[in-house]
Amino acid sequence: MGCLFCAIAKGEIPAQIVYKDEDLVAFKDINPQSPVHILIIPRRHIANLTDLDEADTELAGKMILLAGKLAREMDIAESGYRLVINSGREGGQVVQHLHLHLLGGRQLGGQLG
Amino acid sequence: MGCLFCAIAKGEIPAQIVYKDEDLVAFKDINPQSPVHILIIPRRHIANLTDLDEADTELAGKMILLAGKLAREMDIAESGYRLVINSGREGGQVVQHLHLHLLGGRQLGGQLG
Repeated sequence: MGCLFCAIAKGEIPAQIVYKDEDLVAFKDINPQSPVHILIIPRRHIANLTDLDEADTELAGKMILLAGKLAREMDIAESGYRLVINSGREGGQVVQHLHLHLLGGRQLGGQLG
Repeated sequence: MGCLFCAIAKGEIPAQIVYKDEDLVAFKDINPQSPVHILIIPRRHIANLTDLDEADTELAGKMILLAGKLAREMDIAESGYRLVINSGREGGQVVQHLHLHLLGGRQLGGQLG
């Protein structure tokens, strides 16, 4: 089995893409937990956050900045939103390709996990 | 009233600091939601994620990389962990100084908010 998110990044599996550039792809979560629920992934296969090294600092920063930009575009920057990155089993990571959740469009709970 | 997290960064208010450098400070959350619950903040006062601009890309990346480094040091990198950044009211942001939550040490729930 290949990696689902690599296949989405390559356009081999359809997804509702909301942004793409040479480094990153963003698409709507197929099982949204809030009115806005977008996943931001690096095109390069990185299994999880622990696999990032210092050379990836700018890439990681771009993921965060893109989340802020998309929050503005989706009109949730003022009302508020949450970014979540799960890493590993106890973090609840389901797909083993680094991804950042952008959630918003409703009041999110105070519990972080 | 000044900013609580600026005061912690300056050492004016005590906190259980686990890391500091010229850009970032990390300390234990005073009201932990999991066995490991650390907050990572920039020293510079940035109210929320929406206030980051492109010049802050490296700073944002450093926050993510530091989370991975601390996860390894706290021995939760293998078991798993979650990063959360809340921005604004509906995101559940409580202190108006950008901060990243690093949570781990137990099975975190599937619900992201």
